Amino acid sequence: MRTVETTVLADFVREARATTGSLLAVGDVGASTVRFALVTGVEHGQTVQFLKFSNIRSVPNLHKVLEVIATALGDTVTRRITAGAIAVPGPVQDGERAVIANYKAETTEGRTIDARKLPSGLFPRAKTVVLNDVEAAGYGVIGLDTVGDLNIFRILWESGRAPRHDNAPLKALPKGNILVVAPGTGLGSCLIQYHPRAVGGGQAGTYSVLPLEFGHTNAPQHEETAFLDSYSQELGYAAEFDDVCTGRGLEFAYRFHSNGKRLTAPEISQLAKDGDDTASLAMRTYHQFIMSFCSQLTMGLLLSAIIICGDNVVSNGYYFERPANVDALRDQLLSHSMERMGFMSRPDVCLATQHINLNLIGCIYAAAATVKTPAKIQSKL
Amino acid sequence: MRTVETTVLADFVREARATTGSLLAVGDVGASTVRFALVTGVEHGQTVQFLKFSNIRSVPNLHKVLEVIATALGDTVTRRITAGAIAVPGPVQDGERAVIANYKAETTEGRTIDARKLPSGLFPRAKTVVLNDVEAAGYGVIGLDTVGDLNIFRILWESGRAPRHDNAPLKALPKGNILVVAPGTGLGSCLIQYHPRAVGGGQAGTYSVLPLEFGHTNAPQHEETAFLDSYSQELGYAAEFDDVCTGRGLEFAYRFHSNGKRLTAPEISQLAKDGDDTASLAMRTYHQFIMSFCSQLTMGLLLSAIIICGDNVVSNGYYFERPANVDALRDQLLSHSMERMGFMSRPDVCLATQHINLNLIGCIYAAAATVKTPAKIQSKL
Repeated sequence: MRTVETTVLADFVREARATTGSLLAVGDVGASTVRFALVTGVEHGQTVQFLKFSNIRSVPNLHKVLEVIATALGDTVTRRITAGAIAVPGPVQDGERAVIANYKAETTEGRTIDARKLPSGLFPRAKTVVLNDVEAAGYGVIGLDTVGDLNIFRILWESGRAPRHDNAPLKALPKGNILVVAPGTGLGSCLIQYHPRAVGGGQAGTYSVLPLEFGHTNAPQHEETAFLDSYSQELGYAAEFDDVCTGRGLEFAYRFHSNGKRLTAPEISQLAKDGDDTASLAMRTYHQFIMSFCSQLTMGLLLSAIIICGDNVVSNGYYFERPANVDALRDQLLSHSMERMGFMSRPDVCLATQHINLNLIGCIYAAAATVKTPAKIQSKL
Repeated sequence: MRTVETTVLADFVREARATTGSLLAVGDVGASTVRFALVTGVEHGQTVQFLKFSNIRSVPNLHKVLEVIATALGDTVTRRITAGAIAVPGPVQDGERAVIANYKAETTEGRTIDARKLPSGLFPRAKTVVLNDVEAAGYGVIGLDTVGDLNIFRILWESGRAPRHDNAPLKALPKGNILVVAPGTGLGSCLIQYHPRAVGGGQAGTYSVLPLEFGHTNAPQHEETAFLDSYSQELGYAAEFDDVCTGRGLEFAYRFHSNGKRLTAPEISQLAKDGDDTASLAMRTYHQFIMSFCSQLTMGLLLSAIIICGDNVVSNGYYFERPANVDALRDQLLSHSMERMGFMSRPDVCLATQHINLNLIGCIYAAAATVKTPAKIQSKL
């Protein structure tokens, strides 16, 4: 395997050995790449650069690469690791294991990441948590809030107000439920839950993260009926939000609006950016369903805020720069029978504007919490 | 106002005066009736009988009745009240106030129950919580679990298994997320959330309750399309689950299946019990949508169990005694694209079989938690 360049690994090991004090091990497992980082505690004020490696595609391969890293680091470094957290794409069972659906392995075991089976040199037993990737992003948002560094998010509109179109940054999380929604290869989401009362003898006024899988619920069919009928027929089942609010959904929307023309999601986005009508219509359909998704959850989870994030929305930032598009997003969110009681206009709606590794930041936050050590949370990762 | 009979109040006061030790004040505000109880701590082993009063319909009226009760009890009793909790029909803001939609008062204030404005003789300031009614029921379920008294619920089917049809009682809550769903005048629901990790410095392995309002989300329209189209047209907006999975939904289903015949929900249920085909079809439609609701939330909230409760399902108990009906409920729950990965057959599904005051039990549990006193939880209330 040439998944980690030898020179890159040597640099990483040298930097890790130069640190002192306890370390946290964090990882972000994507569909094809894995990011791994060692982070020093806040008292040492340093963050080790992360390693990025690709072509993994099975859990045994992942274990091998992690073993290589552990061996290269040596005992003097690995014994300083006090806790770990790893973010994975997919639902997590019992906070410790998850099946990676798009990994190539014949057995379920070969696709299952399990906290108890990760190389313990890097991920200490009983001090390592497995997080869903958007759950990790949720902890990342909480982590950034604790250090007052939420300005990577800008406010599209505030509770009960019209869109503001002025790039105002988010200052602090509201004391209420917050939906984090990340349209990517799937439509990921989590709830940052505010606890006005203490849970389990803890402190009142804290946040926790509830992983959600509403991407796999069905899009309500009373809007865009012809579009959804056509898509469901192609899919062979009732379209899920996850089918619509993703790259493949955008591609279907373009085919639908162009009577069959096939382009990739990045091509469609570029055409829309350049003013093409059909591509713009496809982008509009795709974003309307994201807001329809937010609309259902605004009601169901009584939201105070919505944070739309992920590399896709940052890359499509131009879309949100155009006031008419943002106005249409808000109209779509408010287009629900319960707006008569004001529920749909209640949440603040915010958008990520920079590519940052929110998942790794969340892993740092969660790993630090397991050992009750304050972590150095910073957005530049 | 003749909302509380004088002799009933005199009995209540005599019983309350005969108790010793600290007391919890709990209330359950329904659409037309209010239940109020004083409960002694577990160390005194007693529960005061509750008072039930009706014809309230505005918050000023409620306050007046509570003042009458406080005065009748006298300072020697009320100063022993250490905490309170009150359950209300409707979404609660900040754990302390809620607008009661069906109260008759001209101003919003006259319909708003606020923990800080309740008569403080009964509901101590800063030690009183306002709970959504199904949120309270969720705490009631947790409370009953703590004393091993969940046998008021029977298991319809267990994770990955066929329906069991043998009235087996529920023994303990699973260590996972549990949906409580209560079809009544609205389709209420809450999530009993299991915390594998500690929240806010508390203990891992505890439960908390997240109030939900998914009753007001839209029913997916790919099934029963003609039914939903017709209903949405009558309503003037896309039908919510709350419109379908309630008495008025059952009544519409009967009108739809009978080509316009109008009967009340209890009449339809009785006819179905007696074997009438059209009424049985209406009952089938109504229950299928309840399971469609559960299906969406099984996926979205990654459920380990579903508890269907409320007076309506207890009254319609005969429906669940018939194996073919339960088989149809399970088929409906599993009828979702994500069953290909086994998500829909994962939760245990349970049903309430007795009329008990789960909301008041939950209020006792929540009030006790605010003062960290163990409460005497019992199902016979």
